[in-house]
Amino acid sequence: MTGGRFITLEGGEGAGKTTQLSRLAQALAPLVPEVVTTREPGGSPGAEAIRGLLVAGGAERWDPRGEALLHAAARRDHLLRTVWPALARGAWVVCDRFADSTSAYQGGGHGLPQDELDALHAFVCGGFQPDLTVIFDLPVAVGLARAGRRGGGEDRYERMDPAFHQRLFDRYHAIASAFPERCRLIEADGAIEAVHARLWAVVLERFPELTERR
Amino acid sequence: MTGGRFITLEGGEGAGKTTQLSRLAQALAPLVPEVVTTREPGGSPGAEAIRGLLVAGGAERWDPRGEALLHAAARRDHLLRTVWPALARGAWVVCDRFADSTSAYQGGGHGLPQDELDALHAFVCGGFQPDLTVIFDLPVAVGLARAGRRGGGEDRYERMDPAFHQRLFDRYHAIASAFPERCRLIEADGAIEAVHARLWAVVLERFPELTERR
Ligand SMILES: Nc1ncnc2c1ncn2[C@@H]1O[C@H](COP(=O)(O)OP(=O)(O)OP(=O)(O)O)[C@@H](O)[C@H]1O
Ligand SMILES: Nc1ncnc2c1ncn2[C@@H]1O[C@H](COP(=O)(O)OP(=O)(O)OP(=O)(O)O)[C@@H](O)[C@H]1O
Ligand SMILES: [Mg+2]
Ligand SMILES: [Mg+2]
Repeated sequence: MTGGRFITLEGGEGAGKTTQLSRLAQALAPLVPEVVTTREPGGSPGAEAIRGLLVAGGAERWDPRGEALLHAAARRDHLLRTVWPALARGAWVVCDRFADSTSAYQGGGHGLPQDELDALHAFVCGGFQPDLTVIFDLPVAVGLARAGRRGGGEDRYERMDPAFHQRLFDRYHAIASAFPERCRLIEADGAIEAVHARLWAVVLERFPELTERR
Repeated sequence: MTGGRFITLEGGEGAGKTTQLSRLAQALAPLVPEVVTTREPGGSPGAEAIRGLLVAGGAERWDPRGEALLHAAARRDHLLRTVWPALARGAWVVCDRFADSTSAYQGGGHGLPQDELDALHAFVCGGFQPDLTVIFDLPVAVGLARAGRRGGGEDRYERMDPAFHQRLFDRYHAIASAFPERCRLIEADGAIEAVHARLWAVVLERFPELTERR
């Protein structure tokens, strides 16, 4: 698992993670041996099948513990089939959501105890962690308005109440404070290119080897 | 969760669990307010969808940790939607496989540490346990021969090697010894009615209230 780097993008609904993922991959591509973009839940055939169970159906289809377990199962498959092999061959892996989403949604949003979620994460992958996690900071109302305009069928979370999304937001801020080595919070309001510039600055600062190679 | 009783049937492939489940339900029906028969993985709409992911595909589709997590997610849904509501209304719930199957297959068979599987079980349902677990004791070769004759598409485990099935067998014996209050081992060789008589004797011995009500 040496060689590559693992970067995760985190934040609430409509914060711009998916939009920024491909811009980041474009910027990285000329500077690293290989870029792999992926997402959670999903990112491998097995995990995408589990995603199908998670994103469809009513908001009450799974309870928070069931949901956390399905995310954990999907994450295990995703790491095993996609992320770890890519890192092992030296790729830079950029992932749209990862374990902090479980802490934010099932922990912050739904109130599961963080120590139990940490134990579940250890069952999935021991002490494995991203090299860098960028948390997109955007007022809840702005993100939900953006996501609402987007359309598409995967809207189980968007239909949850605003207080739920506020708890997500608060938990993401708490995660950024608790893990300052791993996490960077960036302002996600403004034009897509402006947000990209902030994201890219954070990536260059965290990985000085990128500038050295230029 | 008071009122009802939770009975689980355990053992290797082809040991006769599914066959005996319906005979046991028949015998219980006149003696208790309600009998619910169910199975794992499955037993609720969400858990049956997860079962679909578990039973199909090649033997290597999921690694042991991923498999344990999918079973845990299915178990959570099954308990929440089927088992706990049934017990709460006083039903006797008879379940074809439960958590000991995870210990036997992912622990004994695949070598995951039992303390990690116990922690996962606690995440799923705290200290909840069956009132009685009957473990069907049958030589591996006899069970596999029976299961092979049965046909059907859900044969991902049957295709694993005999040493794997021997480890299951050994683990089931270890579970029976470790939890003598909860578990009873019964000889599963012989005619269906003979096995039923052994099963029924164990059930009557464990729940004297059944004879009192006669
Ligand atoms: N900087 C921006 N300004 C305005 N709109 C944006 C900006 N970035 C993304 N959008 C738009 O907002 C919507 C949500 O963006 P995106 O899908 O990238 O967010 P996300 O963080 O991936 O959301 P989710 O968590 O729901 O997957 C999209 O329609 C996207 O085009
Ligand atoms: N006592 C018995 N003698 C001979 N054959 C039996 C006996 N009990 C069950 N069988 C047959 O053996 C096969 C396996 O039985 P069954 O499906 O009940 O086992 P099982 O323990 O549920 O197996 P699995 O773990 O694979 O679900 C079936 O074809 C069944 O009809
Ligand atoms: Mg997105
Ligand atoms: Mg069966």
